[in-house]
Formats: sequence, structure tokens, C-alpha cells
Amino acid sequence: MVQATTPTAESPPRPRAETVPPPEDEEARTGALGERALALARFYQGKIETVPKVPVRSLTDFSLWYTPGIAHVSRAIEKDPDLSFELTGRWNAIAIVTDGSRVLGLGDVGPAAAMPVMEGKALLFRYLGGVNAIPVPIAIDTEDEFIETVVRLSPAFGGINLEDIASPKCFRILGELQRRLPIPVWHDDQLGTAAATIAGLLNALTLTGRDIRTTRTVLLGAGAANIATARLLIALGQDAHLLTIVDQKGILFAERDDVDSLSLRNTWKYHLALTTDGGGRRGTLAQALRGADVVLAASRPDPTTISPAAVRSMAPKPIVFALANPVPEIWPDQARAAGAAIVATGRSDFPNQVNNSLVFPGVFRGVLDARARSIPDEIVIAAARELATHAQDRGLTPEHILPTMEEVGIFPHIAAATAETAVRLGIARTRRTREEFYAHALEVIQHSVHLATRLLEDGLTLPMPDEPPGGTRGTR
Amino acid sequence: MVQATTPTAESPPRPRAETVPPPEDEEARTGALGERALALARFYQGKIETVPKVPVRSLTDFSLWYTPGIAHVSRAIEKDPDLSFELTGRWNAIAIVTDGSRVLGLGDVGPAAAMPVMEGKALLFRYLGGVNAIPVPIAIDTEDEFIETVVRLSPAFGGINLEDIASPKCFRILGELQRRLPIPVWHDDQLGTAAATIAGLLNALTLTGRDIRTTRTVLLGAGAANIATARLLIALGQDAHLLTIVDQKGILFAERDDVDSLSLRNTWKYHLALTTDGGGRRGTLAQALRGADVVLAASRPDPTTISPAAVRSMAPKPIVFALANPVPEIWPDQARAAGAAIVATGRSDFPNQVNNSLVFPGVFRGVLDARARSIPDEIVIAAARELATHAQDRGLTPEHILPTMEEVGIFPHIAAATAETAVRLGIARTRRTREEFYAHALEVIQHSVHLATRLLEDGLTLPMPDEPPGGTRGTR
Repeated sequence: MVQATTPTAESPPRPRAETVPPPEDEEARTGALGERALALARFYQGKIETVPKVPVRSLTDFSLWYTPGIAHVSRAIEKDPDLSFELTGRWNAIAIVTDGSRVLGLGDVGPAAAMPVMEGKALLFRYLGGVNAIPVPIAIDTEDEFIETVVRLSPAFGGINLEDIASPKCFRILGELQRRLPIPVWHDDQLGTAAATIAGLLNALTLTGRDIRTTRTVLLGAGAANIATARLLIALGQDAHLLTIVDQKGILFAERDDVDSLSLRNTWKYHLALTTDGGGRRGTLAQALRGADVVLAASRPDPTTISPAAVRSMAPKPIVFALANPVPEIWPDQARAAGAAIVATGRSDFPNQVNNSLVFPGVFRGVLDARARSIPDEIVIAAARELATHAQDRGLTPEHILPTMEEVGIFPHIAAATAETAVRLGIARTRRTREEFYAHALEVIQHSVHLATRLLEDGLTLPMPDEPPGGTRGTR
Repeated sequence: MVQATTPTAESPPRPRAETVPPPEDEEARTGALGERALALARFYQGKIETVPKVPVRSLTDFSLWYTPGIAHVSRAIEKDPDLSFELTGRWNAIAIVTDGSRVLGLGDVGPAAAMPVMEGKALLFRYLGGVNAIPVPIAIDTEDEFIETVVRLSPAFGGINLEDIASPKCFRILGELQRRLPIPVWHDDQLGTAAATIAGLLNALTLTGRDIRTTRTVLLGAGAANIATARLLIALGQDAHLLTIVDQKGILFAERDDVDSLSLRNTWKYHLALTTDGGGRRGTLAQALRGADVVLAASRPDPTTISPAAVRSMAPKPIVFALANPVPEIWPDQARAAGAAIVATGRSDFPNQVNNSLVFPGVFRGVLDARARSIPDEIVIAAARELATHAQDRGLTPEHILPTMEEVGIFPHIAAATAETAVRLGIARTRRTREEFYAHALEVIQHSVHLATRLLEDGLTLPMPDEPPGGTRGTR
């Protein structure tokens, strides 16, 4: 039997696995895609631009859009700052903020190099959620500078989306900003990924006849996504004593050598070490997985991280989420061959893609439409439940536990569920019914799609230049 | 004879003047315009929005616009940060940054209330200059926080436009940011207004047969605009000993009681006190104006600030720029009746509007197209000269010393002159001919106008709701 080991950040272990697809295909595919992306970046020089939202019939209209008329609008907001959500674009504007400290799989590339990724995210926000998202990569040195800078920027925005920030600093940055700002602050790598994971998991539990309260769950990786997932799981009824977190040092438990030091540098992980105490387990990933119902892996790209033998050692009908990108911790066919009842990955070319893009467009549409003052975990859970419900509507199967990205009809529904929850929690600045929120979200998102379509038809967006041979199918 | 006095910041003096139009008309006009602007702000809820600049044919395109393809683009920029100007929207993006400390005539209204004004400016940048301008009102307490915040934001932007910042802190903020950032930083209330003033003045000097080196010039007001104007005048050959600066305490000279204290809190004004030493004069505005060739007033709205008698006391064929908004320091008909050969104001409803909007769209188009590293005074002067030239092309008269805002054809010319100067100074990241810069600027600006026109035709920009009776003609 193959000995399962846990990956390390520095050099993922490479135990002998039964079958591993050649990595060359992956690399070639990603390389070609990258070259094409680079050529297109040079061709288009940016992925979003601003356009007028108001008519300019002649220059005299600027007496209304600018001085002198605009002074009255400023004075109204000065008297009541919440009017900034009614009289300016703040109601629909967010900043996508990163320090570039953990960009995709590239690591700490800094703010300038993070810009293309933030632009892509802004395009997703615009296209799927109807949100005016402004990329704001910032050059900072410390967590406090990050927090300060976002606080200073906040008057122009109805929400903040944090992105690609290294763990563990992302936790304190998110927590402090959520505490200090009167608008929703979201870290997509924590909350977006956790919500999509939870949505898929809820359906997987239903399909395999499990109750979350009696489920033994293993989280592999203790980064941004899994720390948030653990917190949401416990909020949903997961017994912390049946929850085992595994990191590069093995099972995380209260008495582990490094836990004391975590109390200073990573209080969220420290807290989980105490509350879960390894779910009663000690040792390696293999020991954690034995008899477990669920593994939620969000570690490093390496298809030998979870061995088929380890899957076989799990409880009957185990649930395996291998979410590392672009290469999962175990290939789906291997996991299924080893007995996994349900397998999910982060990739679009396998069934059950766990994708934060299923979540953030609708969640932001919803909190913006509600003019929410914050974004507590209840909202994250409401969004996850709404996402899970939409997969159910089309029939749950082991290969269909989540909607796909093609089902864009889900976004206004997630928006409505999110906004309604904000109203129920008393954190909304507006008060509408769920139906009204749905109708508004639908209208705003459709406006975005019309804009994109029409600009392309009119030649104001340049058509795609000649394609190279070969496909461009994405993995996330 | 009416005693001319200088205005104070707290309560402008109101000496008996010969004729003063009733202020009620002005107030009624501005009030109606303000109510309309407020209603429209509520209707449109924002003046700009983002749109895709790239085609989205299906969701699989996001593998090129976002992950995984985009990682290659990030890696390229990580290796060569200047590639951010080629591979992202940075080449055409600026931030409009304010702390809301001096918004129009409203004073220190703060960042949220400054937002509508910044949105209007962003619309002007888009419409006239083809620039993606992002309103970024920031909540800060100190000059250092302002500077720090802009430095941190800069990686996403090809330029920074500072706006509506109180004097004198605006001087240090501009100077420090120009020193620290590898992109152009501009404070429109200093440089834009100064450039437009200089352009008009150069033509007024020509028309009245004057040489700047022998011209006696009075600057009334020592705020953002006039401090910059003084510096540019001296760069153009103005003899500092013939330059008299007048503020609310009267003529500014080296030995004046408050000058020592200026050395700490306003070093720019301090420097001018020493170099001009009152242009050899002491006393009040009236004493400054006696025998002067030119007065450039940028003080407070009050049509009795400069008396007709004071104009009569000036040299033959005097030049009077009364630039306070919305009400000039003397009404043009009064100034002309008192012998002024040429009168300019800040208003669009009188001839010779000195308007910073004549300058900033072209200047930013130019420095962005040149990928300039900075924006020294040589560029400001080049823009002013280009602006002056275009008024000459249509024939100089005392009522036509500057192009009007309707002459939008000037912007790509100003852009080309600006960009060419950047190349000549060795601060450009690109190298094109003036003709190429002109063609590119024209294309980008026309694209903006096409975008605006087409969106309106397509109904994607909502048509203007019913007009109230009465005109909406602007004053700036």
C-alpha cells in the first residue's frame, strides 16, 4: 500500500502513486494558453474601460454633470453621507484590492504584476454581476498599511473585494476592515471559495445520506479558503470534534509543538487547533483520512497528494473535494476508482467544479443592491445554500452537485437571497422584497451583458484577432 | 473715488462700487441648475461606469482574460514593470484624487461629498480626453497620509490628477508626489488653471503689443492657481521685480510681518515674497494696480473686488483677468467701460473664458500617450503655447484670446504638443513623431465620443428625463 504523506509548502512529497497522467500535457496546454493571453493583453491593452452613464448632448450639459450644478449634489451628501449611495455611482462600485502578495500560483509578484489578474476579475464582476469593479493593486509593506489604505479609499465604494493576499495576513486584514468599514468587505480567496465548497458539500452530504452533525470531515490545507470553510462548517452544525485539519506538519491539534506560536502569528488557525484538537486524531493525512466521510483539500497542485489507498481507507461512499489549481490533489478518475462516491475539483473540464466565480458576482450584486453595511457569515451561508438549491433544481447526481458557470441565471437568485438576508439581519440601507431584489439584480446584470454585446456588435470593442490553432478551454 | 480693497477669506469686503448687477439673478440661476443637477444625480446614480474592452464570446474566454492564461501576463510584468503600460489598461488610466478639503466653492466637505464632483471630472476626462479616469476621494487627516496613499495607489495608474485640495497643503502634496512617482502627477487647480491663464495672457500681450519681459503684472490672490501662474510667468521671462502679488493682507513683500512665518507653512508663497518683493510696491491692491499692465485675479467671488477706478489707474490698454467663479472680481462691462483693453473671466457666458477644461484633457492624453515619467513645467508651458496658437489660428481679437470649449479639435493638438515635449525632455517611455501622437490622440478621443454617442443611440445610456423650463448654461 502506498504511504500517503502530506504536502509541504517547499517541496510537495511525491510518493509512488498508482497512475499519474503525464504532466507534459498540462504544461503544454497551459503554456499555449499563456502565450495567447499575453498576445491578447498586448493587443487590447486593458480589459475594462469607463464610459459615460449620462447623456452628453452638448458641452453645456456639463453645467449639470459638473460645476456649477454639481455643488448642490455635494452639499446634499455633506449633510447626509448615506446619500452617496443614491446620488453617485457608489451604490454599484467596488474596489478589487490586492497587494500582489499571493497572485494565482505565482506567489508574491507585487501590485503592478497583479494588475492583469485584477483586470480579469473586474471583467468577471462586470459581466456576471453587473458591478463596476475597479482594480486597485496597492504598493504596501505591512498589514497595517494595507488596512489603512483601504479605509482611506472606502468613501468612493459600496464594497471592497480583497484578492490574492498571502495567508495568514489576509485574515487580520479582512477582520479589521470588516470591523472598521460601513460597507461589505469580502476576501474572495476565503469567503468565495468557502461558499462554493460549502454549497457543493451540502449537496454531496444529501446525495450520500449524511447529516453534517455526524460527519467526520478532513480539511487538507490550512490556508485562506480552508480556514474560512472550517468556520462556516462549524456554523452549519459540523461537530468540531469530528473535524480534522491537516497542514504540511500533519494533523493540527491543540498540543502540537507549533501551536503556541500560532497564537501570535495566526490566531484563526490557533483557534481551530484548540476547538478541533485534530478531531481526536494525531499523525499524518493518511491517519486523518482513515474512516473519514469527507476530505476537502485545498493545498498545492500535485496529483499524488491524496493517494487512492488513502481514499480506500475512508468511510463508505466517501466525498473527495480535490480543489488545488490547476492540478487537483488526486485525479478524479483515480479517486472514483478508489471508491469515492462524489469527486469535485477546481477545474471546468471535470464534473463538479468548485468555483468562487459561482458566488462572488451574485453576492456582491446582492449586498450592493441592499446597500449592506457589512457581510457577516450568515450572508456567506445564505449564498451557499442558494447555490446548492439551484443544483438541486436541475437534479442532484454524483456528477452534478453544483451549477456550472454556464448557468448564469443563478446570479440574480443568489443576489436576491443575499440581499434578503442583509435586510433580515438589519444591516441593509434599503428595504425591498426578495422579488424586487431579484428583478433589480436581473436588470442590472442584463444591462451589463447588453453593454458588452452591443459594443462588440458596433465594433467599439475590437473583435478577437486570429485564433491560434488549438483550444483555449479554462481550468478555473 | 472708491477705495479698492482686497478680499479676505473670512468676509470679502464690500466697498461701495459704481454699479453692481443684482446678485439675485445669479443665485436664482445657480439654484435652479443645482436642483436640476440633484434630480439628475438621483436619476442616473453615477456618471461613469465600466464596460468590457475585450470580447466575451463565451465563458471559456475567461481562461484568456483571467486564470489560467493571465498568469503569463503577470509574470511578464513581474520581470519588467514598465510592461504594465503595454499589457494592461495602465497606459490610459488615471486616478482623480481628492481629500475633499476645498471642493468648488463649498470648502472642506470631505471625500464622500466630493465624489459627485470627481465623477463629473471623470466624465470630462473620458469625453474630451479619452482617458479612463477613476474618481478616488480619500479619507485622510494629514498631508503625509495623502502623499502615502497616492504612492500606494500608483501601480494601477499611468497618471494622477489631484483635485480640490486646500492651499497651501496642495503645494507640498504635489511636489512630493511629483518627486516620488514615476508617472505624471498634476494638480488641476494649480497647473490646469495656470496653463489656461498663461495661454490667454500670451495672446493678450500680443494683441496689446507688450513684451512679457517688460510687463508690470499684478496677481490678486495667492492660492493654488496664482502661485503656479507666478512660477510659470517667471519661467516665461516675466521680470520678478515687475510682478506684484496681492493677497488678503495686501501686497506681498519680503519684509512683510507674516513672511517669516510663511517660510514654514507655505514655502512657495514665501519664495515668491522674496523673489518679487512686491514688484517694488507696498500697500493695497489699489497701489499695486496703479500703472500696472496686467491683473490676473483668482480670489473670491465678489464683483466689487476690483473697482472701475482701479482699472482706470492701470497703464493704457490694461489687461484684466477676473477669474473668480461663479462671480468675477469685476463684471466685464464695468472693466471695459473703465478702459480695459482685454477682459477674461472664468465664465462661459462672457467672451474669453479661462477654463482649465481647455487644458487637462489634452495634456493627460499627451503624457499618457508618451507614457511620460513626470510632468515638468516645460510641459505645462508647451500646452499653454499650443492653446494660445489655436486661438491665433482663428484670429486674435480682444474678445477672442482663447479657444472656446466648443473647439474640441484642439485637444489632440495639445496632446501631440505635450507628448512631443515629453519625448524631447527625455521623460517619455515611448518615442513617436508629433504626427503619430496626434493621430493616436485623435483616435482615442474619437473612440470615447463614439462610445458615448452609440450608447445613447442604443438606449444603453438612458435619455435625459423631462427638462424643466429655463436654460442650463454653465459658468465654468
